[in-house]
Amino acid sequence: MPPFPECAVIREVGLRDGLQSIQSVMPTERKCAWLRAAHAAGLREIEVGSFVPARLLPQLADTAELVDFARRLPGLFVSVLVPNLKGAERAIEAGADLMLVPLSASEAHSLANLRKTPDEVVAEVARMRAARDAAGAKTLIEGGIGTAFGCTLQGQVQAQDVLRYMQALLDAGADRVSLADTVGYANPAAVRELFGAAHAIAGERLWCAHFHDTRGLALANVLAALETGVTRFDASLAGIGGCPHAPGASGNAASEDLAFMLAGMGIRTGIDIEALLALRAQVAQWLAHETLHGTLWRAGLPKTFHAAYAN
Amino acid sequence: MPPFPECAVIREVGLRDGLQSIQSVMPTERKCAWLRAAHAAGLREIEVGSFVPARLLPQLADTAELVDFARRLPGLFVSVLVPNLKGAERAIEAGADLMLVPLSASEAHSLANLRKTPDEVVAEVARMRAARDAAGAKTLIEGGIGTAFGCTLQGQVQAQDVLRYMQALLDAGADRVSLADTVGYANPAAVRELFGAAHAIAGERLWCAHFHDTRGLALANVLAALETGVTRFDASLAGIGGCPHAPGASGNAASEDLAFMLAGMGIRTGIDIEALLALRAQVAQWLAHETLHGTLWRAGLPKTFHAAYAN
Repeated sequence: MPPFPECAVIREVGLRDGLQSIQSVMPTERKCAWLRAAHAAGLREIEVGSFVPARLLPQLADTAELVDFARRLPGLFVSVLVPNLKGAERAIEAGADLMLVPLSASEAHSLANLRKTPDEVVAEVARMRAARDAAGAKTLIEGGIGTAFGCTLQGQVQAQDVLRYMQALLDAGADRVSLADTVGYANPAAVRELFGAAHAIAGERLWCAHFHDTRGLALANVLAALETGVTRFDASLAGIGGCPHAPGASGNAASEDLAFMLAGMGIRTGIDIEALLALRAQVAQWLAHETLHGTLWRAGLPKTFHAAYAN
Repeated sequence: MPPFPECAVIREVGLRDGLQSIQSVMPTERKCAWLRAAHAAGLREIEVGSFVPARLLPQLADTAELVDFARRLPGLFVSVLVPNLKGAERAIEAGADLMLVPLSASEAHSLANLRKTPDEVVAEVARMRAARDAAGAKTLIEGGIGTAFGCTLQGQVQAQDVLRYMQALLDAGADRVSLADTVGYANPAAVRELFGAAHAIAGERLWCAHFHDTRGLALANVLAALETGVTRFDASLAGIGGCPHAPGASGNAASEDLAFMLAGMGIRTGIDIEALLALRAQVAQWLAHETLHGTLWRAGLPKTFHAAYAN
């Protein structure tokens, strides 16, 4: 059995993947309070929003302000999602540390969600790379391959297609690639196989795993990915999130449950879980009318937790 | 990485661990309907009840009738829980295939839950074994070590104590031993370590893993145990269950989510998940006022499920 790593990173995506699936718009000052508290709790990578047209996602219209705010939090690595060149230009201008470009390995999902084929997204990444380099900017480009384990629209997605797009993204100039189970179709055996193959293609550029808890397997899938050598995981406070084109798909891995699992395993994340649970309680109050997820918050930390584990 | 096994067994414990934590008494005819439907859905090991005094657990007072009913379902391996010699005698008389004797590795939990020290439970197992052999009965004796990963009352539980009790149970005549995370304190690293050590002691007599989902890690813990070679898991339909001496501990691994995970991984369980989901819906109707758990039932099976997996 491979040993578990000493450290791992939780990338909080609640402010992007979470809030984009919630109809009501959270005021910018609350998002800033969320960012400040997440940073104080030890999170060091946060996806703060998405550079998409405000008419499509009014919930994320304040992304530039949030990047500006987040950049001032010491040591915080600030990510944003960008669907196209225009978004990438805004991310570069705002000074984001990383921009994640979603590519759906399912062509049906790609057309529904991005109105582009996967190959068109790859071509767009090449233009983003050129723009980034021309601007002399340092914003990293991450190609995030979604529906990597199957798709509610298309059904099966072939691993060879996923891996082909991964290679194409790298060839087009992506600095990082990641795999996402957008609709909750993954299982630990599929994760082991696909991430194993992805490591062979991308090596250390395989950056992150993104699992939804749609069918209850998010943390088991994290464990399987961890065992292949992945050490960075997207997660969302209170498990909020989903995909507008994947019915019933709401629920990212819950950040607080994931942080608890990793800490219990002796894997350092730098996160103060009690502070994270306090933030969850605050966010739950703000989102009182939404369906939230996660399990740890109900039972609380084990009595033995502090004696057994340091972060 | 070790390959995953080809087959695994889900032992349904909802009728015992689940119903004992629910105040209202389910009528025997409903329990029989549950057993019949579970059997029809492909479950072949079920813990049908507990031979404890009816005044303590009126919910399980019909255990003898249920054993009798369950024994007539072809190929069903019928388990019961027995806390003492008196219970074992009833299990033997009823013709149960297996009797699970709970031992709490936490002395505080043992005294609160069983009113015996762990060593007194070991001595009782020796008496059960003598009674079983004297009767010429075939009822297997399983020593189930609870609070194996920590205890809400005592706090930490040392692995060396757990393993010492395991050896003592085997020495006293237990045919099988198992480990239970009674209060949801386990994590995949602890599971890997403790089950790894337990295999070295018990070999093929290490029979089952019992995880509660109190803090969301039940399926990740199943995966970790599976990787050590365990292939039998307790689970409860709709995740019902808990421990009266472990506040907030409700929630076994949900049978339907576990069956889905294993099937997705290509591990045969013989279970028809759609039939299991239909049974869950029936049980949820019977228990309409109770808090149920599990995730798969909301989203349903993936579109790709039937094409990809056979049971």
